[in-house]
Amino acid sequence: MNDAPDSALPVQKPSELAAIDLGSNSFHMVVGQLRDGEFKPLDIMSEKVQLAAGLDADKRLSEAAQLRGLECLARFAQRVRDLPRQSVRIVGTNALREAVNRREFLERAEEVLGTPLEVISGREEARLIYLGVSQSLPPVDGRRLVIDIGGGSTEFIVGRGVAPRELESLEMGCVSFTQRFFASGDISEEAFQKATYAALRELLSIQKRYRRLGWSHCVGSSGTIKAIRNACVSLGYTEERISAQALHKLRQRILGYRRVDEITEVKLERRPVLPAGLAILCAAFDSLGIDEMEYSDGALREGLLYEMVGRLHHEDIRERSLDALTRRYHVDRHQAERVERTALRALDQLQAPWQLDQPHQRQMLRWAAATHEVGLSLSHSGYHKHSAYLLQYSDMAGFTDLDRLQLALLVRSHRRKIPKDEFKLLPKSKQETCRRLTVLLRLAALLHRNRSSARLPEFRLEFAAKRLYLSFPRGWLDNHPLTKADLEQEADYLKAFNLKLQVA
Amino acid sequence: MNDAPDSALPVQKPSELAAIDLGSNSFHMVVGQLRDGEFKPLDIMSEKVQLAAGLDADKRLSEAAQLRGLECLARFAQRVRDLPRQSVRIVGTNALREAVNRREFLERAEEVLGTPLEVISGREEARLIYLGVSQSLPPVDGRRLVIDIGGGSTEFIVGRGVAPRELESLEMGCVSFTQRFFASGDISEEAFQKATYAALRELLSIQKRYRRLGWSHCVGSSGTIKAIRNACVSLGYTEERISAQALHKLRQRILGYRRVDEITEVKLERRPVLPAGLAILCAAFDSLGIDEMEYSDGALREGLLYEMVGRLHHEDIRERSLDALTRRYHVDRHQAERVERTALRALDQLQAPWQLDQPHQRQMLRWAAATHEVGLSLSHSGYHKHSAYLLQYSDMAGFTDLDRLQLALLVRSHRRKIPKDEFKLLPKSKQETCRRLTVLLRLAALLHRNRSSARLPEFRLEFAAKRLYLSFPRGWLDNHPLTKADLEQEADYLKAFNLKLQVA
Repeated sequence: MNDAPDSALPVQKPSELAAIDLGSNSFHMVVGQLRDGEFKPLDIMSEKVQLAAGLDADKRLSEAAQLRGLECLARFAQRVRDLPRQSVRIVGTNALREAVNRREFLERAEEVLGTPLEVISGREEARLIYLGVSQSLPPVDGRRLVIDIGGGSTEFIVGRGVAPRELESLEMGCVSFTQRFFASGDISEEAFQKATYAALRELLSIQKRYRRLGWSHCVGSSGTIKAIRNACVSLGYTEERISAQALHKLRQRILGYRRVDEITEVKLERRPVLPAGLAILCAAFDSLGIDEMEYSDGALREGLLYEMVGRLHHEDIRERSLDALTRRYHVDRHQAERVERTALRALDQLQAPWQLDQPHQRQMLRWAAATHEVGLSLSHSGYHKHSAYLLQYSDMAGFTDLDRLQLALLVRSHRRKIPKDEFKLLPKSKQETCRRLTVLLRLAALLHRNRSSARLPEFRLEFAAKRLYLSFPRGWLDNHPLTKADLEQEADYLKAFNLKLQVA
Repeated sequence: MNDAPDSALPVQKPSELAAIDLGSNSFHMVVGQLRDGEFKPLDIMSEKVQLAAGLDADKRLSEAAQLRGLECLARFAQRVRDLPRQSVRIVGTNALREAVNRREFLERAEEVLGTPLEVISGREEARLIYLGVSQSLPPVDGRRLVIDIGGGSTEFIVGRGVAPRELESLEMGCVSFTQRFFASGDISEEAFQKATYAALRELLSIQKRYRRLGWSHCVGSSGTIKAIRNACVSLGYTEERISAQALHKLRQRILGYRRVDEITEVKLERRPVLPAGLAILCAAFDSLGIDEMEYSDGALREGLLYEMVGRLHHEDIRERSLDALTRRYHVDRHQAERVERTALRALDQLQAPWQLDQPHQRQMLRWAAATHEVGLSLSHSGYHKHSAYLLQYSDMAGFTDLDRLQLALLVRSHRRKIPKDEFKLLPKSKQETCRRLTVLLRLAALLHRNRSSARLPEFRLEFAAKRLYLSFPRGWLDNHPLTKADLEQEADYLKAFNLKLQVA
């Protein structure tokens, strides 16, 4: 049996970072490493401690709640105790801000953790949330409103780029409001109304100021908002974002139940706190006049990590994600650029008849060209499928789920047989565009099959009555018999899209 | 429209290599790059030219067959014509050796290709096949017999390591024998018998000499042998290798058909030449007394490429494949080594009761430990599934399909819920072993969750009556509450294997 300690190995472990967040509903830990300028998580833990539920009427944290928290921290501690002190940041939020006996808990917690922990103010929490969200989304023109519904408080931030402008933390959360309005587990119109009014009252303190400042994009983070977004999407109330209308429909649906355990639209552990969370979000939409809200995975923990890493990015985070991805999988950039250029030339010619004039469509085609060969790093055989798998499952900060789905589908369909039924997985409004972009990518990849840096001739693409006409300068095709054979085969593949390819 | 030539980009394209093989049945091309010491294919083409079928009674290659070949070469040429001359190797085999008018065809072919091509002798073909096979399989003790059934000739080689000892090319192939014995497309016992006798006669010239030399392993390459292996496996005649018995069963089954178009066990284009190929293989098994044969993907083209690359490896090619894989996905080797060490300590303790005393079982566990985290390079979420995907689909020279399936399953099951039904995808004889190795890997990964280099305490593992007893030195577990909680959870997961984990 070999028992030599690991110290026999050269110790040059890439440095690990950890962030622990003692939230009012759950405690979370994330441990990871910095690679290629991106933070890669290695271990993630969440435990539903429900500290806020342990605050009694005198705001004392009960012994039972303290023990729940300390036991959870003991498990986290085993994971982080060998890390250097400057690599771990541990923060407590609302429930600990409120607890009059927090000092007692903090001392016990520090003993368990072996690391100091800080209770941060609501505004500091808001600042870190904004930071986490701004680093996980692509930049936008104009200001952003960010909302994060926690267990004991809800943060509202307006900012531009990475700079917050207004920061507020209101004392209402999905756990504390559950205790106030839904403690019995019963759901009623009356209780819901009371919760909404209570939230509206809290919001009065920021309503005018925030509305006056204004924003062009609204983003939500937190488990509550994620659960609401997912429920709205899977019920078909919306395609991707939470719209005011979808939120209203979900409210009606939830009010149709009498007890929280009847709710089936969200995961088991989310059910008890859903009505309260929903009431807070409805009030926020009302009070601030929100039309729609997108969801972001980044929040407090990500803010803590980015701040530790000390790298803030102002550029489009999606470009950084793509760059890291294509470097990781050794994509041949010259080839990717050739395919991109030709695909965009093709798009330019079909922009009008195929209604491809949105910048986002052009961008999607560029992304697909950049990544269509990532799967080659696994194997040549079926590499378009591997590319799609990597795009669907790799961490790619800044891309929405729908972006990734479209991108994976484009890349999946860029060669060989077209899996036409998979396009039905997209929202209806995106299907036809995605089919058209697929055709452009396929043609570009086909024309560059020989990976040569020799320049392609001018080609002409026209579309009319389900026919796609592709023409080359006289004689060129006869000198390129591989391309000619590939195009004949392609005409057959494109029948899947009811498209007749004619080459001259 | 952007038309700048690519030359604006720095030209430092990783060098491409190409091998083209003008076989008697099909022409093949593979283009690829050398990366991390491995050849990575970028483009693969095969066209069924059936040159051998174009040889008339006077061994003249008909104009029609020449044109089929030249048209195919024109398509290949477009792909390789920009490559430096020393990076392309083009060889012709039996049909061109035989054709009396080959000079005429070669001149026309060189004009199309812009590169000289060589017709290699049967023994040179045999040497290159042996080279390709020996580089694609793990080393074995003793000698290897390699058989490759081409369209016009069949090569037989005996060698050790990368050095061939006996090299022969016999003039019988699946295309030429189809023309002689199955030209009408009819299948009969009589025709099959005639073909077998003809092959046995050819084999007489090597039978004694080869049998005297002997071998410990027999390997087949070529499309014919692959098709026969796959048919035997999918019919359930064998688990992985072609056994003499499975071959006999397949022979009986094929003789049950009257026409080649009734054959459903192989792909459409393989059907016409299957009876002839099967007769040759049956004769080889008989004449040389072969019990079983494994299949290798490597053959002539791989031999050409390895020789161009100039790198021959004598070590276990599987270690090289694993090394390339874990480097590509930035696996934390310290962690992998820790998990491996602990998994092997666990195996040592359960070797007797769990019947894990085969070197191959130990090796499988080592491979799984080395690779279980490759999927982390995609994303933390569900990374065990990503690891399994990468292992299942990445090029990994030297691993059999069954090795990869077992490895992927082990890695897939190393954390979280056990997908117990997936173990049924393995051959029955491997299922229980794979379940047991899974348990060992899970425990090792769990105990090293904190990725610490601190040494684990001595632990004891015992097994009796479906119970697995795991014990630690007194007090250790109380100081490691994360591990304790993980083990409680693990006891629950292991119920899927009808196993009761008891921790003390």
